[in-house]
Parts: sequence; structure tokens; C-alpha cells
Amino acid sequence: MEAPPYYRIALDVMGGDHGPGATLDGAALALSAMPDLYLLLVGDRAKIEPRLARCGIQGELLARTKIVQAASVVTMDDKATAIIKEKRDSSIRVAAECVRGGDAHGMVSMGHTGAAMVASMKVIGTLPGVDRPCLAAIFPSLRGTPTVLLDVGANVNCKPEHIAQFALMGDVYAEEVLGVKNPKIGVLSVGEEDGKGSKITRQALDFLRNQDIHFGGNAEGRDLWDRDFDVIACDGFIGNVVLKSSEALAEGILHGLKDTLKSNFLGRLGGLLVRSTLRKFYKKLDYAEYGGAPLLGVKGISIIGHGRSTGRAVSAAIRAAVRGAKNNINGRIQERMLRLLQASREHEAV
Amino acid sequence: MEAPPYYRIALDVMGGDHGPGATLDGAALALSAMPDLYLLLVGDRAKIEPRLARCGIQGELLARTKIVQAASVVTMDDKATAIIKEKRDSSIRVAAECVRGGDAHGMVSMGHTGAAMVASMKVIGTLPGVDRPCLAAIFPSLRGTPTVLLDVGANVNCKPEHIAQFALMGDVYAEEVLGVKNPKIGVLSVGEEDGKGSKITRQALDFLRNQDIHFGGNAEGRDLWDRDFDVIACDGFIGNVVLKSSEALAEGILHGLKDTLKSNFLGRLGGLLVRSTLRKFYKKLDYAEYGGAPLLGVKGISIIGHGRSTGRAVSAAIRAAVRGAKNNINGRIQERMLRLLQASREHEAV
Repeated sequence: MEAPPYYRIALDVMGGDHGPGATLDGAALALSAMPDLYLLLVGDRAKIEPRLARCGIQGELLARTKIVQAASVVTMDDKATAIIKEKRDSSIRVAAECVRGGDAHGMVSMGHTGAAMVASMKVIGTLPGVDRPCLAAIFPSLRGTPTVLLDVGANVNCKPEHIAQFALMGDVYAEEVLGVKNPKIGVLSVGEEDGKGSKITRQALDFLRNQDIHFGGNAEGRDLWDRDFDVIACDGFIGNVVLKSSEALAEGILHGLKDTLKSNFLGRLGGLLVRSTLRKFYKKLDYAEYGGAPLLGVKGISIIGHGRSTGRAVSAAIRAAVRGAKNNINGRIQERMLRLLQASREHEAV
Repeated sequence: MEAPPYYRIALDVMGGDHGPGATLDGAALALSAMPDLYLLLVGDRAKIEPRLARCGIQGELLARTKIVQAASVVTMDDKATAIIKEKRDSSIRVAAECVRGGDAHGMVSMGHTGAAMVASMKVIGTLPGVDRPCLAAIFPSLRGTPTVLLDVGANVNCKPEHIAQFALMGDVYAEEVLGVKNPKIGVLSVGEEDGKGSKITRQALDFLRNQDIHFGGNAEGRDLWDRDFDVIACDGFIGNVVLKSSEALAEGILHGLKDTLKSNFLGRLGGLLVRSTLRKFYKKLDYAEYGGAPLLGVKGISIIGHGRSTGRAVSAAIRAAVRGAKNNINGRIQERMLRLLQASREHEAV
């Protein structure tokens, strides 16, 4: 039997609130679902090895894994930059080294978001042609297809060309990883008309107007949830605020709803009847479906998952990393960056 | 019987999606609830007069009203600046003239938000000491007390001192109108620590640190919903995006939930049982409780309500305007602006 073209992903087994068990559950799910996946399980061998069989990683699945030793873990009390000096032997840093060294196409971590970003940018490095890598959030949508919002954390004080680059990277990700055909791209602003917005967003529109994309111009806050944009680009400050406020609002409503239903007898009775219906609805809002936030614009694939990720979310994150590698998103991103640069030079020449 | 100290509010009767009927319902509620309220009903006399009795405005209530004729209405197709030239006789502009001329302490409009802002700023005028008036959104909270977010629309490209002014104006509004004791104030940013944020938000922190307020430093996106800030100040661009995305998300979840419950028999049955419980929950999220968005920093009170306002919301907006006048928020805002200016001068002198 010939070896399939393996896609090699370095998985930070130690990251995540649920510990190595949840991450390895996800690894097992992913290995079963993707016969062309090879996983580098990065972390403390003594903690990983005894859990493998229990998580269902044995036989053929086990043959497509390798443990890569990493002695320490970046904790929530560490600074993001800890991976540079004190924690060079942390699982996040070692996973990034696997990508840097060519052992893996990409990395997946559910650990310290900031540390995973620093590792991706400093260890793996920025893709030539990209000014600033950016973190993309995949917003689940009530209407079916998700919306990609980027940047959501990495970059404060963006220039117009950065926002244009984010938009183009998001376009590639939506198309190649999320499978959205001809995604509609927007720039986050305070009104639909082209004249609305800040100086920076208006210039970002200019950069994007002549690119070969399905460009929808300005998007508004409500378009994150109830309209037809697939990708929305913005400064990392505003993206971070919108992401965090949305998460808190959605959780607040859903928890509040549960508490309210429990507060009286009719509510409890009705709540029992609607439980499975509600569960179906909650699933639509579940980020786990999309696995995590890709850090786009680095020389490899980097998917940063939520600390609370379950096995299903870990598996989805690995699937996203594999798709990114398989569909060569970085090659496509570089083409886009080149065209953007050419267009802006032509514009200047005119 | 001696005349009570009347608080005179100019009500734009013609604005709002539900037409003059809903506005007059709100007027009737407000007049009944507040014996010291006098209303200037601004709009087309021919449309207002025949509706008064039907809405319950008669006898003693009627005696505390006066119709002020305004021939035209700003529609959603008009530009916000229409009130400057073409629609000088619009109900929004005439209401603002009532405040400018001293006939009214404040105005309330459920009409064109942009036009109401322009009328407040250009006709009523900016309060001395305030650099830029700002629009404040009152976010209903699942935990009881609301959170004031400002600015949410008026000002793009804010300087640090503008954000500091917004924070201080929000402090006065929360205390004097919403009745929050010693409100906790924050600046919207991307992390809790003082070093986090943009250059602009970090400088805004410096301006606010030595003011006589309960200052909590940086607030994050999630603090809009699940933590203990009462007032959060930010650039008008980001405030607008957060407001619109939150509205769309909350509506999307609640509508999606209704649809889901209707989608099968158990859901429908359970839905009937939980209906009143759900209604109680929805009420917690209802902006109508707070009546509208105050435009702070103008020489008078200006409350801009949602176009969809019901009578109850109109009445709440009028109540907010009366409280603002009664508790002299503008006097208090001016004191704050003066102290801010003194502190920054002392700072420069050091």
C-alpha cells in the first residue's frame, strides 16, 4: 500500500482548559476522519503516552502520530512573550518549531492565545508580502454560512493597506477552508455609503475596489449577523472589542434564558419539552463547528482554538489546518498580496 | 393652587415609525406620571389635534400641553442636514428651536437620528467647555443596572481628550438620570492592564486618572455585558459598530429562538408553556425601559429615541429629559469639563 500524501499538523496537546484528554479526543476524531492526516503530538511524553489508547489512538491511527517532547506549558499567568525566553521548551513554542523546521505544515493550539500568536509570528515567521499577520474569527451565523471577521486581536493602529491585506487573506480563507464560493468582502464601517467611515477605512476601500474579488464596500456592525457579507475586515482593536462583546452577549442571553426557564414550574416543564429544540439552536451558534481562529499571513498554517475547546472543536481546528495546507492558502495569499502591491503602484504612477 | 415648577419638553410628535398616535400615547403616559411636566407637542396641528382626546390627552393633562406648528417631517430618505435648509419647518428642527429659544428645557424625538443630532448640535448648540457632543447608548443589562456606552455615533477620529470628556458626561448622566450611585467608569480597550490599548485610549486613561470619579481603567468588549462597569467611553466609530452588531445579534438570537420553537410539535407545546417566562426575559433586554439615546454636551437636553418606540418608550424618553433638566446635568457637565481642563493644564505645567 502506497503512503498517501500526508498532511502533517503539530498539535499542542498540553494547551486548553480541559487538559490533554480533550485534545487527544480531538486528535482521535481527526485521525479517524482524515486518512491523509499525520499528527505530531507535542507535549510531555509522560502525560501523553498513557492517555493514547484510552482516547482511541491505537493501531492504524497511532501509526500516523509521533510524540514530540516539550517539557513545559505556557499557562494563563504567563506573558505571551514567555515563549521567547523562559519557555522555549513549551509545547506552543515546540509546535511552532515543528512548522519552522518543515516537519509540519501547520500547528494547532488551544493554549494561551497571545503566546500562540507570538510563536506563529516570531518562530514560524511572516509570509513574504504580508505586512502584518492577522487573527481571524469565524462568527457562526444564524443563517447558515459563517462570517469571517479579521483582524480580531493582533494589530492595533492599522493602516489602510493593512486592512486591505486582511480582507484579501480572509477572502482566501473563506473560499479555500470554509468552502464559501466567491465570498462577499466588506470593510467594517459606520454606514453603507462609500463616503462613510474614517479616513483609514475610506482609503482601505480604495485599495480593494480594483482587486479581483466580490467586493461589497462598507459593512456595518449589523452585517456581522444579519446580512450577506462573508468576510469583514477591520482594525484589530475594533475587531477584538466586537468579538469579545459578541461572545459575552450571546452567552449572557443563553444563560439568562436557561435561568429564566428554571425560575418557575411552567418554565421548567416547558423547558423540558423544548430542550432538544433549544440544543439544536445552540449548536448553530457554536464556534466549535469551525474549530478556531486562524492566524493568517504566517509561513505555515496556524489555528488557535478556544481554551474551552471540546474534542469536536479540536478536531475541527485540525481539519481547518489540513484544508489550509491542502488548498495551499499561503500560495494564494501571496498571489493576492502581489496583485495588491501592483495595483497600488499603478495607482501611484497615474 | 400654585403652579408647580414645570419642566417643559418639546416632543417631536411626527417622528417615529408608528406615527403620531404612538408618540401621543407616550405623551399621555408621561403627563399622567409626571405632574410637573409641560409638553410642547411639535408637529402638524391638523394631525395632532384630532388625536389628542383619543390618546387620553384631555382635561388637566391637556392643560399642560401646547401644540407648536411644524409643517414638514424629516423622512428616512432625507439627509441629516436637511434640517439646515430645505426642512427648516420640520418638526425636528422646530423642536430644537423651542429649546434654543428657551421655551423648552429639552427635546425628545423618535425621528431621523442623524437629523435630530444635527438639529441638537447646530440649532441648540454645543455646551461651552465641551469639544464634541456625543450620543450615549443605554445598554440594558441582564444583571439589572444598565451600562452607558458613549460615543455611539457622532464622532469618528476622536482624540484622547474627547474620550475623556465622553466618560465624564456619561458619569453625570448615569448618576443624575439613571440613578446609579457612584458609577464605575471605563475606557473601551483590548485588555485590562493599563498598558493595553491604542495610543489614544492610553492617553485617555491619563486624562481620567486624577478626576474625581470612580475610575476602573480599561474596560473590554465583554464588560459591556457581563461585568461591573456602568459607563464605558470610546471613539464614535467603534461605539457605533458595537451598538449595531449587538442589536443585530440579540435580535438574531431571539428571533432564531422563536422560529426554532415553532419548528416542531414539542417545541410549539413547550413554547406555549414558556411564553410568559420568555416575555419576562425579553423585557430585561428591552431598550424601551430607558427611552432613548441622550445626546450629551448640548445647551439643553436632547433625547433621541428609536424609530420603533412604543408609547412606553416615548414616555421613558420624556422622563429621561425631565430628570436631566431637574437634576441640572448640563451644569454638572460643565463643572466636570472645567476640572478636566484644569487638571490637564496643571499636568502640562509640571
